[in-house]
Amino acid sequence: MSSTRSLSLAIRRARAPRIRCHLRPQLQSFLLASRQFSTTPQTRAADPSTPPKQANFTSDAYPSIKRNPSFAQLTAEHVSHFKTLLGSEAAVIDGVTRTDAADDIEPFNLDWMRKYRGHTRFVLKPGSTQEVSAVLRYCNEQKLAVVPQGGNTGLVGGGVPVFDEIVVNMSRMNTIRSFDGNSGVLVVDGGVILEVAEKFLAEKKHVFPLDLGAKGSCHIGGNLSTNAGGLRLLRYGSLHGNCLGLEAVLADGTIVDDMCTLRKNNTGYDLKHLFIGSEGTIGIITGASIICPQKPKAVNVAYFGVESYEQLIKAFLEAKSQLSEILSAFELMDGRSQELVHNVTGLKKPLDGKYPFYCLVETSGSNGEHDNAKLEAFLEHVMGEEIVSDGVLAQDETQAQTLWRWREGITEALSHTGGTYKYDVSIPLSELYQLVDDTRERLTQAGLVGDDESYPVRDVLGYGHMGDANLHLNVSVRQYSKEVEKVIEPWVYEWIQKRNGSISAEHGLGLAKKEFIGYSKSETMVRLMKQLKTLYDPNGIMNPYKYI
Amino acid sequence: MSSTRSLSLAIRRARAPRIRCHLRPQLQSFLLASRQFSTTPQTRAADPSTPPKQANFTSDAYPSIKRNPSFAQLTAEHVSHFKTLLGSEAAVIDGVTRTDAADDIEPFNLDWMRKYRGHTRFVLKPGSTQEVSAVLRYCNEQKLAVVPQGGNTGLVGGGVPVFDEIVVNMSRMNTIRSFDGNSGVLVVDGGVILEVAEKFLAEKKHVFPLDLGAKGSCHIGGNLSTNAGGLRLLRYGSLHGNCLGLEAVLADGTIVDDMCTLRKNNTGYDLKHLFIGSEGTIGIITGASIICPQKPKAVNVAYFGVESYEQLIKAFLEAKSQLSEILSAFELMDGRSQELVHNVTGLKKPLDGKYPFYCLVETSGSNGEHDNAKLEAFLEHVMGEEIVSDGVLAQDETQAQTLWRWREGITEALSHTGGTYKYDVSIPLSELYQLVDDTRERLTQAGLVGDDESYPVRDVLGYGHMGDANLHLNVSVRQYSKEVEKVIEPWVYEWIQKRNGSISAEHGLGLAKKEFIGYSKSETMVRLMKQLKTLYDPNGIMNPYKYI
Repeated sequence: MSSTRSLSLAIRRARAPRIRCHLRPQLQSFLLASRQFSTTPQTRAADPSTPPKQANFTSDAYPSIKRNPSFAQLTAEHVSHFKTLLGSEAAVIDGVTRTDAADDIEPFNLDWMRKYRGHTRFVLKPGSTQEVSAVLRYCNEQKLAVVPQGGNTGLVGGGVPVFDEIVVNMSRMNTIRSFDGNSGVLVVDGGVILEVAEKFLAEKKHVFPLDLGAKGSCHIGGNLSTNAGGLRLLRYGSLHGNCLGLEAVLADGTIVDDMCTLRKNNTGYDLKHLFIGSEGTIGIITGASIICPQKPKAVNVAYFGVESYEQLIKAFLEAKSQLSEILSAFELMDGRSQELVHNVTGLKKPLDGKYPFYCLVETSGSNGEHDNAKLEAFLEHVMGEEIVSDGVLAQDETQAQTLWRWREGITEALSHTGGTYKYDVSIPLSELYQLVDDTRERLTQAGLVGDDESYPVRDVLGYGHMGDANLHLNVSVRQYSKEVEKVIEPWVYEWIQKRNGSISAEHGLGLAKKEFIGYSKSETMVRLMKQLKTLYDPNGIMNPYKYI
Repeated sequence: MSSTRSLSLAIRRARAPRIRCHLRPQLQSFLLASRQFSTTPQTRAADPSTPPKQANFTSDAYPSIKRNPSFAQLTAEHVSHFKTLLGSEAAVIDGVTRTDAADDIEPFNLDWMRKYRGHTRFVLKPGSTQEVSAVLRYCNEQKLAVVPQGGNTGLVGGGVPVFDEIVVNMSRMNTIRSFDGNSGVLVVDGGVILEVAEKFLAEKKHVFPLDLGAKGSCHIGGNLSTNAGGLRLLRYGSLHGNCLGLEAVLADGTIVDDMCTLRKNNTGYDLKHLFIGSEGTIGIITGASIICPQKPKAVNVAYFGVESYEQLIKAFLEAKSQLSEILSAFELMDGRSQELVHNVTGLKKPLDGKYPFYCLVETSGSNGEHDNAKLEAFLEHVMGEEIVSDGVLAQDETQAQTLWRWREGITEALSHTGGTYKYDVSIPLSELYQLVDDTRERLTQAGLVGDDESYPVRDVLGYGHMGDANLHLNVSVRQYSKEVEKVIEPWVYEWIQKRNGSISAEHGLGLAKKEFIGYSKSETMVRLMKQLKTLYDPNGIMNPYKYI
């Protein structure tokens, strides 16, 4: 790649004492290792190095939540009716009339982090919108509670049951319905896996406007239900902007056919937005149309070490100004998060020195030469001004992917070390990272943090989407405990509320944040939300015990 | 501008027989003329060359619409109460107890196109969200119907009364509340005029993510209420994506405080989207926070003549592919629309020849040199392949603005020639312009089109946002007549429905399209919309007789 070579020369010219930015041959060497470092839950579950933790039932962890007695208990008659509705054996996992089905059912009861575990004995996998409609209509009539489930990669316990709710798993609705190369509009079933759509689009020289670490498992319907933000929001905007049409089924079986494929359509209330981010509490998303940008012809990824959070803000503002329309990601990782990835994966670090902060900067554009020139000017500036201390630039796509693993792999690395209390927050940029330091200080003061196995907390670290002022605060624990929780909550929410932040930037409310919505939304807003929930789901069968 | 000069040289090199693309000195000369060609309704009303048309009352034009007898008649007691609520003389225009106020009230009864005219005798101009709340609470209690009114630039009669509805005009709520240079988040009152915000942002090196011809008058609250699309949607996306927070008042006076300034906030149903595009039928938008992009450092505008619609599609797809992230507008204008602008304004045409189609291509980027290089490659290609036949490139911002007037000035030029039946539709690109030809053919067959004053229809023309597959079909008439309407409607809606298009891409439903929503939305969707309307406005006082 000659253009990259010329950039390397320019960086050398710009080099100041202490500042190096180099193209590192050893990046290649740790690629194979990192390839084994998959983000799919399946891989993790099979990994023998992960000690199987005995997950607690959510009903035990949250004794205040009681099963709603107005919900019916599933009977053999119900089961028989569902089997008639859905037909094939693959569509029903039945632990009600079949006592040998417990093992088959367990993966649907347990969340990705092994933190939330339900008691369901019945899983349905409808294969069409009509089947989803028939299932919900019957559940609503019979007052059978339901949990819609996508790829089960959520982080707030929204996708698994608490008690005996029926799991409606969307994995069989996995058809890519259409793609229009002129407009870039992709139409999919709700159960299409994000990475499948991404690969399909790559062949058509387009990209999905959303990317996130769980893409190997998560469903597009689930992404929409949780209004997933991810890595490309800075560039392509939110799903509220990119979703052009939606097909969903309400609690009473009504099919909401709003499957528009037009970029503009001002014909009445835009109901689709009610489903985006409603976490399956008013309906199940069975299909969607998404406007997909053209695949950028040139992608550059750089990884920097930075001496302070103040310098990191400076670097971000410079990137925003100088890289402008080609800036596609600006990710923050603290030093602890990078040490963790290193320790868990054994990957060779991209930089020699140790820094309190790192950032990953990605550009995506239509002209590699222009993008390199812009990136070069940016690098010269941030290095010349000593805004960043060291950096490395990927030479090709493979190296770029490898650098990305230092950001995308943090979540999984955390899951290898025990449990994690995750706080996904948005705070104005100037105070964003302060929350991590304050939380660590608070837990340390409480005597809960230490290297010794007797301390419940291993570490407190932070990373996130700097470009969206979105921080992931992670408290890594040896085991989940009320003692730790009490020190963090509600203190952490009060901290965020004082700064007009959001207690859930992109992960959603689920079960984890349900009680705390008042820290980000007023009583009036919560009242209006409950009004909508009652309107669309008067029996409250959709994903109960969660959200609001 | 040396970079533009180098582009000119390159174009000359690329020149093929019949193909010219030149920097035209006379562009400068017609700038002064075009400056007089303002887009503000005020200017137009004062223009002595515009013959005052006697506008019909909407109640006469639509005799099937009857005043809802459940609404109260405004009494002197009501008037007195409102005067106590709002205080100052400027806040109330009172034709109920003051018989001399008829002239003051008329501009609030009559729409921009002089097509819709109401009978109100009472206008309120609240100065704060609390005042809006007090007004609506009282109106709801007293069953007084209300029309929220912004800049009164709507094209479907949504912003003026039909009968005696009280006009709640938002012009006094015109404060820019805050701007954060780091995040680009602007917080404004609903009554801030778009151009005022635009100028404010320009000083801060940012731009509003929406631009449209009526910017000199339209309110940001109105833009949100109608989900305005405009000229920058191709680049910056829709208001559903760019509006981060909203403050609105429901019919019962409830203040919905969802004034988030964060890019990500997944804490409950995202209610703000219900207000975006609901045309004042469930509440009044009193404030909003909008994420604003950085002002592009380089803007280029080119204007082309094209021999056929097929060639125009090719040019668009090439622009999308080659200009990619810097493409900020691709506007279609047919030859008739450009003749009209020429005839009404006397402006010198940008190109010598006559073409059936023209397009305006704008790029906006952070590096003028890179943008010019991309544009140059694009120009070489579309000229070399004879996709476009002739073109002109603006040399500076002034010339760019002048070229824009050939697109932005069409609406106003139409208003100088009589009435216009406007259809704002979205159809898949391949058939987009066919609607104009088919409509002209149909009206011609019916013997309604001619140069002679005896023919009701002057001309049928089309223009629009090619980048969003959004066409404005305009039937220019000497006077509005049922004879013409009957030939066009519902035929035009059936035509659109057959192609899965939208009968209102960006103008909204208002009064004009209310009856026709069934052509773009299913019965189920309309039922769900009516359900929401009933939920938020059980007495139906908000903008009655319109929308759904």
